[in-house]
Amino acid sequence: MKELIKNGNTVRAVDIKPLNKWYQHSAEADNLVLDLRLRENCYKAVNGYDEIFNLAADMGGMGFIENNKAACMISVLINTHLLLASKDCGIERFFYASSACVYNGDKQTDPDNPGLKESDAYPALAEDGYGWEKLFSERMCRHFREDFGLNSRVARFHNVYGPHGTYDGGREKAPAAICRKVIDAKLTGNKEIDIWGDGHQTRSFMFIDDCIKGIQDIMYSNIIEPLNLGSSEMVSINQLVDIVEEIADYKMMRKYDLKAPKGVRGRNSENTLIKKYLGWEPSITLRKGMKKTYDWINDEMLNERKENKGSNRFNI
Amino acid sequence: MKELIKNGNTVRAVDIKPLNKWYQHSAEADNLVLDLRLRENCYKAVNGYDEIFNLAADMGGMGFIENNKAACMISVLINTHLLLASKDCGIERFFYASSACVYNGDKQTDPDNPGLKESDAYPALAEDGYGWEKLFSERMCRHFREDFGLNSRVARFHNVYGPHGTYDGGREKAPAAICRKVIDAKLTGNKEIDIWGDGHQTRSFMFIDDCIKGIQDIMYSNIIEPLNLGSSEMVSINQLVDIVEEIADYKMMRKYDLKAPKGVRGRNSENTLIKKYLGWEPSITLRKGMKKTYDWINDEMLNERKENKGSNRFNI
Repeated sequence: MKELIKNGNTVRAVDIKPLNKWYQHSAEADNLVLDLRLRENCYKAVNGYDEIFNLAADMGGMGFIENNKAACMISVLINTHLLLASKDCGIERFFYASSACVYNGDKQTDPDNPGLKESDAYPALAEDGYGWEKLFSERMCRHFREDFGLNSRVARFHNVYGPHGTYDGGREKAPAAICRKVIDAKLTGNKEIDIWGDGHQTRSFMFIDDCIKGIQDIMYSNIIEPLNLGSSEMVSINQLVDIVEEIADYKMMRKYDLKAPKGVRGRNSENTLIKKYLGWEPSITLRKGMKKTYDWINDEMLNERKENKGSNRFNI
Repeated sequence: MKELIKNGNTVRAVDIKPLNKWYQHSAEADNLVLDLRLRENCYKAVNGYDEIFNLAADMGGMGFIENNKAACMISVLINTHLLLASKDCGIERFFYASSACVYNGDKQTDPDNPGLKESDAYPALAEDGYGWEKLFSERMCRHFREDFGLNSRVARFHNVYGPHGTYDGGREKAPAAICRKVIDAKLTGNKEIDIWGDGHQTRSFMFIDDCIKGIQDIMYSNIIEPLNLGSSEMVSINQLVDIVEEIADYKMMRKYDLKAPKGVRGRNSENTLIKKYLGWEPSITLRKGMKKTYDWINDEMLNERKENKGSNRFNI
């Protein structure tokens, strides 16, 4: 958003959450609180603008319990109503944030996974709930392009991390969770860290600045097929803990919780297509990105301690 | 609907079409014209009732051009909003009409297709547009059952035919189209019939009365997995023409239009599961059902000629 404003665009940001729960907001933007599951609100949201970025993904705060598969109805309603409103309001470009969850689960059982390439989505065995919704919605973006000329672009996001993201509450991803646990341990003198699974599961993590650059590269390109947008720098969760311990200069005992939700065994982004088409590659190493993330979470947690504040991070 | 009324139920029928365009309506029912793509209308539609049958399928009359894939957004909005309204209004049972379009296209290339069994839907390569929407919506019905206790049932409809269906305008299915063509030829003395494709493509057709019985059997059963609801009496389109010629007692020259839309090569219903679980099997042979259908279309066409009426079949 800041990037778009910096480039001279007039920006409207829309979320269902009350403003004081937003993780980020820019005073320069028109910030609206709207429930986009309703058609009329999608018209209100898009009217008068040229481009739409549908980044709706986090179902937290919508009153759904964890692992509630039906929650994906929210995304399908938002995207479908947004597409319709965009078509009717003459929107020029439409960006849709899909996800690595669309990929066939059978191809993610190996921790040495060489990377998921775009064609691995079909024949489909996506992640139950969310993955099927993303797959359906990216197809819908194509139909709106083919049938109505709505210029849609789709990126399949792999894990994104960085400052200004969720780091507690149970919905945070591994990089933020590990930073929080290490910082918390350092502050309290704890010497043990809980790790979900055996730590050998592999993932890749893309720093937020690379992601923002990639979104823009895809949005303003002529590439109409869904593209992976992720890092191909694969690490195990154990290696990620190593990195954070090194940044924190604090060594811990690892306690593996083998009963915790593990997710797929190995997931990595295969970036041949996006490199070929757009020359995009992550520019920030995991080590460097984790340092920035760690420092931000550290500041936040120190401030929280000082001010004894709850989840209301921004004093709006 | 008539069946439900006959059994002493209070019935509400909802369609977006104006009442004078409905193919059937019962004076005993509460007939509402509502656009169910809108959330508030779904609440209006389901409120005060115990059971919902979502049979929305025909996208004709919604202003979409033929083969417009984006039209499947209509069904996804209707089903998602209906599920939400049903959950919130305490609906006891929810029936969803899915379709054979969910099946993997690769399994339908052989005219001697032995039948599509339920597990053939995965890994998924459904029919573009409509098929993926049906697959997504049947999964959503499961999520609402698992997450919210909404008692959903799903049938995968194979071709249905019978009296009181569409027989002209381009959206009619083969049984009705062939009846209409033969009747029209007989009335005008034409000796030639146009057939889409080479006539060797195979299908199966379920008579409407069998379908209605099957819907009820599935709705009031404890079977929560999607079940095929179709006939396994496979015929080629040529054999279907033979049947109609025999009923009409009128032989014609066949002109094969190899450029016309052909659809899949072979599609048949595999009824092992529904037989095993519910003992359901079609009771009306294709020959017998086609006779009833032919007679009804014949009467309609004679009446139309007499009264020179358009598509407004019911004088409401």
